[in-house]
Amino acid sequence: MKATHRPDLFTWSGFDEARNLDFNGWAWIRPEGNVLIDPMPMSPHDLRHLDSLGGAAWIFMSNSDHTRAVAELARRFGAKVGAPEAERAGFPILCDAFFDDGDAPVAGLRLVALNGSKTPGELAFVLGDTVIFGDLVRGHVGGRLNLLPDAKLTDRAAAVESLRRLLGFGPFEAVLVGDGWPIFTDGDAKLRALLP
Amino acid sequence: MKATHRPDLFTWSGFDEARNLDFNGWAWIRPEGNVLIDPMPMSPHDLRHLDSLGGAAWIFMSNSDHTRAVAELARRFGAKVGAPEAERAGFPILCDAFFDDGDAPVAGLRLVALNGSKTPGELAFVLGDTVIFGDLVRGHVGGRLNLLPDAKLTDRAAAVESLRRLLGFGPFEAVLVGDGWPIFTDGDAKLRALLP
Repeated sequence: MKATHRPDLFTWSGFDEARNLDFNGWAWIRPEGNVLIDPMPMSPHDLRHLDSLGGAAWIFMSNSDHTRAVAELARRFGAKVGAPEAERAGFPILCDAFFDDGDAPVAGLRLVALNGSKTPGELAFVLGDTVIFGDLVRGHVGGRLNLLPDAKLTDRAAAVESLRRLLGFGPFEAVLVGDGWPIFTDGDAKLRALLP
Repeated sequence: MKATHRPDLFTWSGFDEARNLDFNGWAWIRPEGNVLIDPMPMSPHDLRHLDSLGGAAWIFMSNSDHTRAVAELARRFGAKVGAPEAERAGFPILCDAFFDDGDAPVAGLRLVALNGSKTPGELAFVLGDTVIFGDLVRGHVGGRLNLLPDAKLTDRAAAVESLRRLLGFGPFEAVLVGDGWPIFTDGDAKLRALLP
């Protein structure tokens, strides 16, 4: 796995040929049990790396389009699986728990539910100075952020309002994204640039 | 290939398991003939992508440790190959030309030779607001730059002096690196942070 801006956060990626960008998974290393977010399939090397850092206790998904390698990694590590409450009905893979806005399933992690994205109640993950997005915010171009394209948004105004509210949980130095280039510095300003 | 901060620059990567970071290659798309810098092996998808953008006319290497996929891509695209003048004697692969400090082998590209790195005369590539490094400057941690570790530098003071001089060709918004995370914004400040 690759180092990020924080010694307790790692990432690994798979290149998506349809979009010409990387899909990223995230590993948060913590003494009380590691957390994976929207994990991509892991190479044998990265699996050994994560083993050496203590495996995984929880896997959280931002939305039902990011099931990625969750089921196989949950089996591999004996991890519990969490997904958005708003997608509880018919979620495509087996989950141990569903989470809603304001939940803090482990100490130090706050979940924020976003409106207007392609799925209801998409979760953003706030870890101190860092926020991790699944789909609503992305990095198609290096060094700046973009919103999910209008064609995929269910309600642009609601999405923007959700971002405005999320900024209240900052300030954020890093804005990490499931799709594309992460932002490691000056995150707040780059998020604010998405607001009208 | 992945988009960068500029529509005329693309990148593709290979994950290095020994260092847990990405090795990056760069493609600069220009009507007069595209330029590759320190290219990694390309997937069939990325080869088709580069074909669609006009192939490659030149391939430049920053230093003899970055021969990577140069020979096979030069054959594939019929590209000319350039390397640092200071490594002309015994360069490990066949080259068409060797370049030194101040050379501008194609319009819009200025070469800057760096001292004190692990090889003599390592080339940095200045393209307007963007500089591309091979080995001397790297991104082991997201959002900031680091110098090649002291154990690999031949002369730290000379390396720092080379960076100070290179800053004179800026200002740089982006600092792109062969090894690790690229910097897409605020490049000058992040380069200056490497100076004592």
